[in-house]
Amino acid sequence: MSFITLTTDFGTKDHFVGAVKGAIYTELAEARIVDITHEISPFNITETAYILKNSYKSFPEGTIHIVGVDSELSADNKHIAIELDNHYFVCPDNGIISMIASEIQPTKIVEINIHDRIESSFPVLDVFVKVACFIARGGNLTVIGREIKEYKKLIEIQPKVNQAQTQIIGGVLYIDNYGNVITNISKKMFNDVGKGRAFKINASRYSFDKIYSRYNEITGNNSNNSSQFDGNKLTIFNSAGFLEIAIYKSNLNTVGGACTLLGLAYRDPIIIEFFTESKPEFTPLT
Amino acid sequence: MSFITLTTDFGTKDHFVGAVKGAIYTELAEARIVDITHEISPFNITETAYILKNSYKSFPEGTIHIVGVDSELSADNKHIAIELDNHYFVCPDNGIISMIASEIQPTKIVEINIHDRIESSFPVLDVFVKVACFIARGGNLTVIGREIKEYKKLIEIQPKVNQAQTQIIGGVLYIDNYGNVITNISKKMFNDVGKGRAFKINASRYSFDKIYSRYNEITGNNSNNSSQFDGNKLTIFNSAGFLEIAIYKSNLNTVGGACTLLGLAYRDPIIIEFFTESKPEFTPLT
Amino acid sequence: MSFITLTTDFGTKDHFVGAVKGAIYTELAEARIVDITHEISPFNITETAYILKNSYKSFPEGTIHIVGVDSELSADNKHIAIELDNHYFVCPDNGIISMIASEIQPTKIVEINIHDRIESSFPVLDVFVKVACFIARGGNLTVIGREIKEYKKLIEIQPKVNQAQTQIIGGVLYIDNYGNVITNISKKMFNDVGKGRAFKINASRYSFDKIYSRYNEITGNNSNNSSQFDGNKLTIFNSAGFLEIAIYKSNLNTVGGACTLLGLAYRDPIIIEFFTESKPEFTPLT
Repeated sequence: MSFITLTTDFGTKDHFVGAVKGAIYTELAEARIVDITHEISPFNITETAYILKNSYKSFPEGTIHIVGVDSELSADNKHIAIELDNHYFVCPDNGIISMIASEIQPTKIVEINIHDRIESSFPVLDVFVKVACFIARGGNLTVIGREIKEYKKLIEIQPKVNQAQTQIIGGVLYIDNYGNVITNISKKMFNDVGKGRAFKINASRYSFDKIYSRYNEITGNNSNNSSQFDGNKLTIFNSAGFLEIAIYKSNLNTVGGACTLLGLAYRDPIIIEFFTESKPEFTPLT
Repeated sequence: MSFITLTTDFGTKDHFVGAVKGAIYTELAEARIVDITHEISPFNITETAYILKNSYKSFPEGTIHIVGVDSELSADNKHIAIELDNHYFVCPDNGIISMIASEIQPTKIVEINIHDRIESSFPVLDVFVKVACFIARGGNLTVIGREIKEYKKLIEIQPKVNQAQTQIIGGVLYIDNYGNVITNISKKMFNDVGKGRAFKINASRYSFDKIYSRYNEITGNNSNNSSQFDGNKLTIFNSAGFLEIAIYKSNLNTVGGACTLLGLAYRDPIIIEFFTESKPEFTPLT
Repeated sequence: MSFITLTTDFGTKDHFVGAVKGAIYTELAEARIVDITHEISPFNITETAYILKNSYKSFPEGTIHIVGVDSELSADNKHIAIELDNHYFVCPDNGIISMIASEIQPTKIVEINIHDRIESSFPVLDVFVKVACFIARGGNLTVIGREIKEYKKLIEIQPKVNQAQTQIIGGVLYIDNYGNVITNISKKMFNDVGKGRAFKINASRYSFDKIYSRYNEITGNNSNNSSQFDGNKLTIFNSAGFLEIAIYKSNLNTVGGACTLLGLAYRDPIIIEFFTESKPEFTPLT
């Protein structure tokens, strides 16, 4: 029983997803296919990495993850298969893996070389399905590719810390379904740099000096009238471990979410200042 | 072989759904997961109840339904597991069950108490998955919670009947994929109150004096030229048993649906008048 | 182990898809259900045919495809079950099959006649599920219907060739997730008519004299600076074998896709001219 997940920018209307699933079942009728998402913004590698990084670990070990984003083969965009953290990834070498594997080294990487007789404008269907089913049947990576040591690195989206260790300069990584704004600043980095000091988080023209551990902490257990807090802004370390700027119980399609209400978009700067002595004397704008 | 369904407001882009599915398969590899929907409007309990009420019954008995809408734990929002109509529901106690169980009493309700060591901003992943898999393995509800007798009641969306039994005052419950407007008035209530009398349905500035049993009844079996009826408005008891106001063969994204064309939105009033003597003498505005 | 696919215009929010899946599992717990899509534009038969035609073949032989688009029963819209190319289709007789089966004759067609006791406004749930599960259990088509020889033909969307064999007059068949414009002109027709002659493709006020076999061919293997080609327009025979007008790495939601940038919509004309002597002397407008 092999799990194969799909993460693509195909959308769910076209024939692409159906065709890929049919091809997997034709190769391996007992495969268990799971959609992670098909709604990656077209060709967006950062989104792909964020979503895959935060979902792959919950799958059983040995799961094979097909990544169908920007996967057309070229001299600059090889196809690779990777064993990492006891999971397999079949994907283009376009930097996705460097964002997933920032803390974990791959066990094995091969450059897929079964393309000799495949001239394809749909490599997920024609190449990745074959590779994934081969791995699912217990095949060795080195049979379908040449072992390599390097993969493409993308480092643009890492937050930076100033020399005095008083600032983290991060940015917006992702906007989620609720319109909440996820930054690239992890709880680990925040704790490592902050060392318990007071802080101010600056995002657009707003600032925050408290980070919640649950969304409804903002209501202060005010159970009789918790809806009065709907629409309040807050920061939280989200379930993926990243600093998130949220609007309590927001609806992006009606009243708006943190992204629209606070005017924050992908790659906007998020800056945390740490204070040595005491809490800052200024009054936050919020 | 246990079926576990998912009904959430997570959307299908973020990592939430993938993470939850992965966690279920890791706990219980042979689970059969079925998406009911992940597109509930954020935090919308009425939508959740309408959709779940009209789909859960078609699943095999013993199916476990996870509800991931407004599920963050608080003093005011406990987590519960319920046995009802030979199905199981794992959900927050936010009123959803009262709308599903309006005609059927739960067999057993427990307040989940496995949270002791779980501090979570993602309770569906961290709590509901464990509970659902425990039930799927045949576990008894009382092991994962304390039996309770009461659950939160939400009654705001029930239609009312006037004392003279000449009026049903209902409202818009839901807008579907075609833009059709579903009211909270059931066929059963209509028949019980109307007792075969003539009637007029008032919705916005439109009225109707006929309820169809199939959409294409409006074409009068005019098979040679049925497309001339496209765009006509009609009322029908839909497959869920509720009074629905529809546009024949509407497309919400192009020409519009009943909601946009007739100007009807969630919670707008829908009033049915019944006539004792004969059909009304006035000319409907339609 | 039977695969049953679903292709509908139900959307993924309402209870329709969940109810249908539950009903299938209740009839046949071991069924393997695969979504092809639920996002067909309401009642759009051409879209349905394009998507199903390009996905059904990749499924294992014997797969049963339920089509839930414009499926309400009427004198003009019978329900049929078809064996075709070693696959089964359960669908309304509204022309869909004529577009799927343009090159392959059905092995058997029956008009479903199990409706006698079913008065339904949701025939996919009440009729198609029963028929699909009956076939999945190995049942013979003639038990659930009367064999017929004819099905409804829709030919409007076939491209035409002029008498001199110098022009193909086609049109836009479908817009995909990337905003790319798929025409109804197949590679086979292009080759049969063109016979290797030089050509000019006219679409809106743009023209093209080259058809790529992969999207990134436009970059000329310029791997050092391939992103300079993002946003360029091109034509390609897509993975489904149809002529497609694309924007290299377009994003329909941000910068736009071929449909919005070139101003092309469903049914717009696409005309290919072939030249006998040599390449045309005029300068393309592009």
